[in-house]
Amino acid sequence: MSSTDLQPWQLRTKEYREQAAAKIPKEWILKPEYTADGGPTSSRFVLDVPAKCGILSERELDITENYDAVALLEKLASGHFTSVEITTAFCKRAAIAQQLTCCLTETFFGQALERAKYCDEYLASHKTPIGPLHGLPVSLKDSFNVKGINSTIGYVSFIGHGPAQDDAALVKVLLSLGAVLYVKTNVPQSLMTGDSENNVFLRVLNPNKLCLGAGGSSGGEGALLRMKGSPIGVGTDIAGSIRIPAYVNGTFGLKPTSRRVPYGGQKGSGRPGFFGILPAAGPLARSVRDISAFMAAVLGYDCWTVDEGVISVPWRRLPSPQGKLTLGYLLEDDMFPLHPTVLRTVKTATAKLTEAGHTVIPVAEHLPPKILEEVVDSAWYNFGMDPARTSEGHVNASGEPFVASIATATPPALKHFKPTLDDAYRFHVERQAFCAKFRELFVEQKLDAIILPAYQATAVAHDKYGVPMYTVLANMLDHPSIVMPYLKADKKLDAEYRRDVSYLPAYVPDEVEGAPCGLQLVGRPMKDEELVEHSQIVADALGIKPL
Amino acid sequence: MSSTDLQPWQLRTKEYREQAAAKIPKEWILKPEYTADGGPTSSRFVLDVPAKCGILSERELDITENYDAVALLEKLASGHFTSVEITTAFCKRAAIAQQLTCCLTETFFGQALERAKYCDEYLASHKTPIGPLHGLPVSLKDSFNVKGINSTIGYVSFIGHGPAQDDAALVKVLLSLGAVLYVKTNVPQSLMTGDSENNVFLRVLNPNKLCLGAGGSSGGEGALLRMKGSPIGVGTDIAGSIRIPAYVNGTFGLKPTSRRVPYGGQKGSGRPGFFGILPAAGPLARSVRDISAFMAAVLGYDCWTVDEGVISVPWRRLPSPQGKLTLGYLLEDDMFPLHPTVLRTVKTATAKLTEAGHTVIPVAEHLPPKILEEVVDSAWYNFGMDPARTSEGHVNASGEPFVASIATATPPALKHFKPTLDDAYRFHVERQAFCAKFRELFVEQKLDAIILPAYQATAVAHDKYGVPMYTVLANMLDHPSIVMPYLKADKKLDAEYRRDVSYLPAYVPDEVEGAPCGLQLVGRPMKDEELVEHSQIVADALGIKPL
Repeated sequence: MSSTDLQPWQLRTKEYREQAAAKIPKEWILKPEYTADGGPTSSRFVLDVPAKCGILSERELDITENYDAVALLEKLASGHFTSVEITTAFCKRAAIAQQLTCCLTETFFGQALERAKYCDEYLASHKTPIGPLHGLPVSLKDSFNVKGINSTIGYVSFIGHGPAQDDAALVKVLLSLGAVLYVKTNVPQSLMTGDSENNVFLRVLNPNKLCLGAGGSSGGEGALLRMKGSPIGVGTDIAGSIRIPAYVNGTFGLKPTSRRVPYGGQKGSGRPGFFGILPAAGPLARSVRDISAFMAAVLGYDCWTVDEGVISVPWRRLPSPQGKLTLGYLLEDDMFPLHPTVLRTVKTATAKLTEAGHTVIPVAEHLPPKILEEVVDSAWYNFGMDPARTSEGHVNASGEPFVASIATATPPALKHFKPTLDDAYRFHVERQAFCAKFRELFVEQKLDAIILPAYQATAVAHDKYGVPMYTVLANMLDHPSIVMPYLKADKKLDAEYRRDVSYLPAYVPDEVEGAPCGLQLVGRPMKDEELVEHSQIVADALGIKPL
Repeated sequence: MSSTDLQPWQLRTKEYREQAAAKIPKEWILKPEYTADGGPTSSRFVLDVPAKCGILSERELDITENYDAVALLEKLASGHFTSVEITTAFCKRAAIAQQLTCCLTETFFGQALERAKYCDEYLASHKTPIGPLHGLPVSLKDSFNVKGINSTIGYVSFIGHGPAQDDAALVKVLLSLGAVLYVKTNVPQSLMTGDSENNVFLRVLNPNKLCLGAGGSSGGEGALLRMKGSPIGVGTDIAGSIRIPAYVNGTFGLKPTSRRVPYGGQKGSGRPGFFGILPAAGPLARSVRDISAFMAAVLGYDCWTVDEGVISVPWRRLPSPQGKLTLGYLLEDDMFPLHPTVLRTVKTATAKLTEAGHTVIPVAEHLPPKILEEVVDSAWYNFGMDPARTSEGHVNASGEPFVASIATATPPALKHFKPTLDDAYRFHVERQAFCAKFRELFVEQKLDAIILPAYQATAVAHDKYGVPMYTVLANMLDHPSIVMPYLKADKKLDAEYRRDVSYLPAYVPDEVEGAPCGLQLVGRPMKDEELVEHSQIVADALGIKPL
């Protein structure tokens, strides 16, 4: 197809992508041998490319591979590493990740290196870091406005919106804490699917296996983090959008209680004034302690001064851990039976935790049998509560088509839903009942947290992710929730966990072989501090190490 | 009119009131000389009746008059006073207040004395109090369900609902902290007017002058507190319903940030699932330190365990005060010019605070000129956002008529408002803009709090209160707000503050002579702790003493 056969939106996006690609310095471009056989149908594993491709120096490989954010911050504060060298290393590695997985949208490497230089000079002259994130590169989901940089968030029509006029609230906080911003990361059209594909920056691929989905909507963050192209990144989550990418790529991710981390000033896909289930911003990271450090740093700032939407309370320091936990576990819903890998993972985890002296109790018997289905149902009606169908309008504005996952991520019943004000009342009543039910469960069973799968499968083939039943629960309840990588798809080990059930999506052992698996922990609302601490205890008991 | 001329709802309420009145022991019934010339057209001041009527002993007068709640709690914990004697004293005084001002709904004196006895026995045997509210009588707005007690909340149709099946969440907390419950207090039909009248328990009168309104919707609390018939009480506030009664009767009152104090499990007037402006429960009290002690006690309990609606964060202990404050002041809106007493009060306060070394700056110039009108407008559209008109249905269910203040407390434009889902979006967008505007004001002017009038007038004649413009601001913003009594209507002093403007309601100097005035302070959201502390500093600077 020649350029002249392209429709206007196609010409526009092609040019836009070419401009974006041109921002990557030539010396960071991978040799064809590393990009050949790539793309969304390839079964290649590309996590080893950065170390092999020769673009990063030994020291840059060390910087990007052998430290979590907390360790890098220590080395930055002490001057052992400069921000310029750390930033250079991550810019290079992010550029490599982009060429393999399409995980980035906007890059601003030059600006980042200027900022890194400023951080280094500041430390040299002041003898003290700018703040707790001094000199650290932080990647951002495309929705976080950075002054002067576009936020297309997967809509062709948004190319015309031009550069952001102001920084998002969290961006202001991060800069004030000393962070270095260098890339924004790719998302799905609408921000409401588990497959990060759009017509502007195309589709994010899973670096563990390119033919698998990288999750969504913070899919670019998940892939970039797993490629070690970022020490820590920020996503947003209204149904699983931080946890899904963390899970399917194999990183750590926290969806905090909503309104703890500043969410304001982002470019949005939905209708302004949307009410009901609240989204939350939160970190994707290499370790539980990185999540803790990020939250402590951000909430150490008086965030309300930049965002009226936050609940203005600092991150609490907890007394030292009290030892053994009481963990509930919620296994599965019949509609989405757990794939063998996931069943093995949860069973292995609960057995090991019990062995380590923690109390692990099944909680399904204390809940209505179809509660997860009811939650999904109620949540999607809430997400469909905009009579103006704002997101569809953003798609239609350019003539671009809908991406395939829009259809698979929406329950069919909702297609012709015409929401009314009465539905809004009904939703709020339903939601309160769910919250009450889970509060009673936590209280009566004296739970510290609930373990549940992050998804019924591991990463699956593109456009197969569907409705994220197991993550949306924490959004409906507005409880904090964390995912941690644990075990991997292994057809030999998984065989005995295979059951005679209808797996949805289909279980294809060879396709998912080697895909990361993981666990989700759901804590009490506003007790994000406790959830993070309990997650560290669980990680220690299961031998889950930082990436 | 004989009983046979009465309509069914009138017979029902007459009988219900007679039953309620019969619960007051005969020896606590006032002699006719104290109730003669009473009622809503009387200009009598009745605050002196308890001391004169001979029903309370000297010790009971001492108990009810000379201590705030903190002082009583100290005496209870040390055993200096028993809970039985304190509870007896407040039951008597509440019964007297009821006969003069109609401030109560349900009384359960016998049950209260049983509970007080239990508290005393507990202290004797355990040598330690049950909790921080050990043995203290606490009065409750009628909406707070107490197991076994009716919650009619001003609807005739609710008589048929019978006794509450469970305690409201806050009631559970109060009992667990050691409190003694003894009365519930009167409210307006609908809970949405500033005049506490309904067809079940009739109209609350202002004890400072019976022909003046006692405010609403926690009007019974305001009158009872001012009569010293309660050491501390709990109201709720979605447009001023704690602060208005506190203000017009002359007590202290805090509307906390919403969701800090448990609100769940109350009997409601509106539609379940109402969203938008959130109501808050909070104390009416005799002193700022009582408010602080109440909040610390309640939030010292893990309230989420009984109410999924709370933001689960403890009451913070602040470091010792940092000295001088920066206070904004917002004077008036042209629609409701400040009556002379109020203008004098605000001007006197700002002058004295400046003299005491605090920075007091006008903030109107940093805000859009009509912002208070815009806020009221937006708020009332939100309150009218129920297509089912649930509260009206509760009235119509019994055939009772609407009380007069329903019409005066609703902007006329709203009468035929047919809300849609689009209006709900519009409201949320408007609200966020208001919140952003005031956040910017606080940040740019480095404000600790904003001083503003609680109302354009002092207490006014019954059914004249109208729309509470000056209180609903804090609900719209969800900032905490406190009112404190300060100065009184004095026609000689007020004369020079009279202006050639249209006072609404009319300014009638002789009618309001002697009515209490006061100040409102609005703080930062979730910084209730700071607001209470700053209020103490303001109270000290102005010489505002506990009642």
